[in-house]
Amino acid sequence: MEINLVSDTITKPTYEMLQYMFNAEVGDDVYKQDPTVIELEDTIAQLFGMEAGLFFPSGTMANQAALKLHTQPGEQIIADKYAHVYLYEGGGASFNSGVSFSLLDGDRGMITAEQVAGAINDPEFYHSPLTSLVCVENTTNKGGGACYELEDLQKIKAVCDANNLKFHLDGARIWNALIAKKQNPKSYGEIFDTISVCLSKGLGAPIGSVLLGDKKTIHRALRIRKILGGGMRQVGYLAAAGLYALDNNITRLAEDHRRAKEIAGILNKREWVARVEPVETNILVFTIKSNYSEKHLIEKLKQKNISISSMGQGKLRMVTHLDYREVMHTYVLETLNKLEL
Amino acid sequence: MEINLVSDTITKPTYEMLQYMFNAEVGDDVYKQDPTVIELEDTIAQLFGMEAGLFFPSGTMANQAALKLHTQPGEQIIADKYAHVYLYEGGGASFNSGVSFSLLDGDRGMITAEQVAGAINDPEFYHSPLTSLVCVENTTNKGGGACYELEDLQKIKAVCDANNLKFHLDGARIWNALIAKKQNPKSYGEIFDTISVCLSKGLGAPIGSVLLGDKKTIHRALRIRKILGGGMRQVGYLAAAGLYALDNNITRLAEDHRRAKEIAGILNKREWVARVEPVETNILVFTIKSNYSEKHLIEKLKQKNISISSMGQGKLRMVTHLDYREVMHTYVLETLNKLEL
Amino acid sequence: MEINLVSDTITKPTYEMLQYMFNAEVGDDVYKQDPTVIELEDTIAQLFGMEAGLFFPSGTMANQAALKLHTQPGEQIIADKYAHVYLYEGGGASFNSGVSFSLLDGDRGMITAEQVAGAINDPEFYHSPLTSLVCVENTTNKGGGACYELEDLQKIKAVCDANNLKFHLDGARIWNALIAKKQNPKSYGEIFDTISVCLSKGLGAPIGSVLLGDKKTIHRALRIRKILGGGMRQVGYLAAAGLYALDNNITRLAEDHRRAKEIAGILNKREWVARVEPVETNILVFTIKSNYSEKHLIEKLKQKNISISSMGQGKLRMVTHLDYREVMHTYVLETLNKLEL
Amino acid sequence: MEINLVSDTITKPTYEMLQYMFNAEVGDDVYKQDPTVIELEDTIAQLFGMEAGLFFPSGTMANQAALKLHTQPGEQIIADKYAHVYLYEGGGASFNSGVSFSLLDGDRGMITAEQVAGAINDPEFYHSPLTSLVCVENTTNKGGGACYELEDLQKIKAVCDANNLKFHLDGARIWNALIAKKQNPKSYGEIFDTISVCLSKGLGAPIGSVLLGDKKTIHRALRIRKILGGGMRQVGYLAAAGLYALDNNITRLAEDHRRAKEIAGILNKREWVARVEPVETNILVFTIKSNYSEKHLIEKLKQKNISISSMGQGKLRMVTHLDYREVMHTYVLETLNKLEL
Repeated sequence: MEINLVSDTITKPTYEMLQYMFNAEVGDDVYKQDPTVIELEDTIAQLFGMEAGLFFPSGTMANQAALKLHTQPGEQIIADKYAHVYLYEGGGASFNSGVSFSLLDGDRGMITAEQVAGAINDPEFYHSPLTSLVCVENTTNKGGGACYELEDLQKIKAVCDANNLKFHLDGARIWNALIAKKQNPKSYGEIFDTISVCLSKGLGAPIGSVLLGDKKTIHRALRIRKILGGGMRQVGYLAAAGLYALDNNITRLAEDHRRAKEIAGILNKREWVARVEPVETNILVFTIKSNYSEKHLIEKLKQKNISISSMGQGKLRMVTHLDYREVMHTYVLETLNKLEL
Repeated sequence: MEINLVSDTITKPTYEMLQYMFNAEVGDDVYKQDPTVIELEDTIAQLFGMEAGLFFPSGTMANQAALKLHTQPGEQIIADKYAHVYLYEGGGASFNSGVSFSLLDGDRGMITAEQVAGAINDPEFYHSPLTSLVCVENTTNKGGGACYELEDLQKIKAVCDANNLKFHLDGARIWNALIAKKQNPKSYGEIFDTISVCLSKGLGAPIGSVLLGDKKTIHRALRIRKILGGGMRQVGYLAAAGLYALDNNITRLAEDHRRAKEIAGILNKREWVARVEPVETNILVFTIKSNYSEKHLIEKLKQKNISISSMGQGKLRMVTHLDYREVMHTYVLETLNKLEL
Repeated sequence: MEINLVSDTITKPTYEMLQYMFNAEVGDDVYKQDPTVIELEDTIAQLFGMEAGLFFPSGTMANQAALKLHTQPGEQIIADKYAHVYLYEGGGASFNSGVSFSLLDGDRGMITAEQVAGAINDPEFYHSPLTSLVCVENTTNKGGGACYELEDLQKIKAVCDANNLKFHLDGARIWNALIAKKQNPKSYGEIFDTISVCLSKGLGAPIGSVLLGDKKTIHRALRIRKILGGGMRQVGYLAAAGLYALDNNITRLAEDHRRAKEIAGILNKREWVARVEPVETNILVFTIKSNYSEKHLIEKLKQKNISISSMGQGKLRMVTHLDYREVMHTYVLETLNKLEL
Repeated sequence: MEINLVSDTITKPTYEMLQYMFNAEVGDDVYKQDPTVIELEDTIAQLFGMEAGLFFPSGTMANQAALKLHTQPGEQIIADKYAHVYLYEGGGASFNSGVSFSLLDGDRGMITAEQVAGAINDPEFYHSPLTSLVCVENTTNKGGGACYELEDLQKIKAVCDANNLKFHLDGARIWNALIAKKQNPKSYGEIFDTISVCLSKGLGAPIGSVLLGDKKTIHRALRIRKILGGGMRQVGYLAAAGLYALDNNITRLAEDHRRAKEIAGILNKREWVARVEPVETNILVFTIKSNYSEKHLIEKLKQKNISISSMGQGKLRMVTHLDYREVMHTYVLETLNKLEL
């Protein structure tokens, strides 16, 4: 029994999801003739109360398209220093859109309206880049699965409106936030210009993201998706997995969150742990004491068939997910409880 | 019975292909841990005698990545005026790579070594863009499925070598060329720096392309694929379709070619046809006489459940493919034989 | 006595121009505090009946800024195949703006409204680049100094308006066109969204171009100039040369045109000349017969202290200008009249 | 008597400098035929012990060209958070080169080898941008004219070499550093791949910068300068000002430094001043106490004909320069000594 807590991207479709996928009705989505893709796009758009959606092969491309939709080359994006769009999309923001970042020192990846207001360049001072977009992540990936209060997002939205800035949500793990905070997705549709949501990760579909926005914006997104090479043919098989996941795998995220918290409970009692970050969703970040070796811990767990990952400088990360089942969880709790470094 | 001769991209997987997809072993390909994807990449690389391959969600992205691999912003690509990379990739060459084109007036989309030699800018004359890449398409899409003799490609290669230019093949329909010209794919591996091959179109897989090159180039391609957002998770289901197609759907392309030629035979006898371009593969381009209406012809065929497409200025196109079966073909031949405009 | 007919860019300021330059009042133009620069910008804007102007260090940068002002990455520009912005700006259109060209086969570098209309991509067909700008050159450089009738430009403008395209004039030699065609610069201000005009070339100032447009566009141009590195400090010395040239060197362009025509008159009689292009302004393009060597002609003239340039394939070019004086002209006419190849 | 301490970019040429400019021998520098420009490029290259130099219309363009020379789109540059290339070049790094920044929290704009080493992304981890360039500024502009010890730069160079990174110096005020630290410019030539040096600012020339590097790099820079529109015609008049400044205005920078320190001495005694940053060269940064108004101070000084500038959040800046003469200095010291807020 291999237990992988490295990431929630590694989940594989269940037999039921696969059945659903391979019975999908498909068409050529490059010509927008795939009915299953259209159903998925419409379903998620309606869920968030937004006008339209567009399927993308990856969350990275959905985010990159959003950055391009809202910016012109030379402009600047405000985001947290841990933002996925800055750190982990291969430098795509500058490659694809020619934009730079003004990075904020947020709290576990979450930024405030005050910080945003302070980072906006004077639009008349043309020596500095024009600020045109604010981007937040919810839940935060490198921030340890932290999630925003709606009112904090509404305050940032007010700053955006007052300064003519667009507002994008990287919602790779928005489903976890919705469950953890008991929020209504329609509240997000009211706040953001665009939202990217992921079908893999917690939901367990193999591939795909959907970008949401108003009709005009999503129509423009179609052209950008084409340019980036994200237009695919009979892609309804993948969209079907997303539809299945929406129906079956959302409420169960609460279990992932419970398990992450239970692991945190054990870690907090272990003497080799310096600090466990607050656990809100399915990501758990902790730091080991400086006299212990991060690498050594990873190897010890590996010997016991448990894979976790390092974030550098004594920080480690575990991520719970669909394929991390109760029997595995019991074993992980026992193992951590006994583990001596 | 709907008969679609608009494009060979509209084919849908057969039951057998779906079964094969369904049973694929998958992993997270973003971490290069999907065994089926790796098997597909290796299989095609070996087929063409090249060192490595990389799976892409579309032929457009595979081509765009290749252009980026071989050029720097400001440089220039030599291609035929009908080239897909110039006409039909959304302006991606300038968007993604910041490059321009020197377009040649080829024969049905095919260019010659002499033409290439004449289009290379003097590298010391810095007022003009630096020429760095030659790109050919085989078979040609807008050129009507025409295909190159190997020795003509070898001559272009010699010009590239003499002028320090890279050479890319847009092989969206290379399988058709291999069958039509009875060529060995390894001959292509010897000529080109990179080759993109498509799994949908004639082969009938739903999605995907593979870019081939040497190990170092394909390693760099991984980073570009990430930046463009083409890294996908459990994508082995799609790769499996490609593997199935390689085993089952290549030799049968000869049937598509025969059928296209038979349609041409009929058209050549019809009085409303001005000219039928030579048919070499599965694409048939013809022109109707100027006193007949292109639009009218399309509508008349549509009433008979046959869809074909217009290329403008009296030109029309038909494309045969996996889902265009003998019973349909018999009906199409009969219909065209009787059709009065 | 060295006689340089290679280009009109090689002129040097006269003593009077230098006096005027070095008595200029200057300031820091990066902060828009240089009164002489502002005077030049306002003077030229008023001359063309446009709202505002901005000084640039080169015509290339003025053109490049205009392309950027009117396009977004991935879009397409319609221009003649000889266009300076395509051929001789280092590939800057794709480097700086990420755009491609649809090139027309014009008459001596001049294109028609019909040609433009035929080259516009369907804006809904997102597989092809979005057409957003038409760019013409007047007089044409590689077209041999040909110049447009106003009504032909007005017809192109009508096509632009009907298709939501912007219209830019590369007016590097617009002064020659104004003199040759006896046109009013204000007519140009009514037709174009932006116009770049050059202070060197025929006018004889050492450096600089001015981009004209409406206030909002030119305000945006300030930011682009900054990004490209074209913001300069006490640049009023150079602007002063432009002001001097406007007052002193425009009407005399008629002499350059007369001299170019007189040279054409002689060449037309020489047996080694195959064809002399019609001469409208200060550029003269001719072709020698195929049994004579282009290189040999250039060398023979060089021995007689006359420099002219080759355009390749038997074509040669001479350009008259401020520093090509009557005494030189007499000598050139005599020399050509006697020259045996 | 207007006293401007806002910036050292506002200096105007003296009569002697103008005479020198006026008498310069010029040519068409786009064809590299301007002897005065070539003399300036060679003189500065030799001064720094580098192979070649290239004249640019601005320091911004010289820096932007350097970033482009050393990076590919998508890559990342390491620099201090106050870096001019990040803050004040209009977002040009992402616009022109498609690159992003990893910003370090330096000491008054100066970064350390340890900080650089910690900011380099793992080149095999392709999810993050590839680090390819380190850029330092000496003296630092927003850092208050601070300057590096040579050995600290040598340590950074060692990190660059070990990690295959290029190293660029933004030497807009390198002359001040050379004087303040009594350093040999040749030491810089040994450390950096490219250096941009400014002719305006402290040196008092009206316009221009020179980029230094090895022959191959500077040859490539010529093409980039062309693309950005920085190729100018008879620009020797401006180059002459630089040659004059090199001979006449360097050693006198020590006076600017003395005066800045004397102002600091006075400010340190005033009760409304919270803190004066250490003064090393000609830039003086100080903070007023939070119960005093920054804006009020600027206005009070303005009434006394002294202009200084705000850096926000209570910080103010004064810059001494060639046009700030002893009589002005005496008056400024007296005024500050008596000033009550």
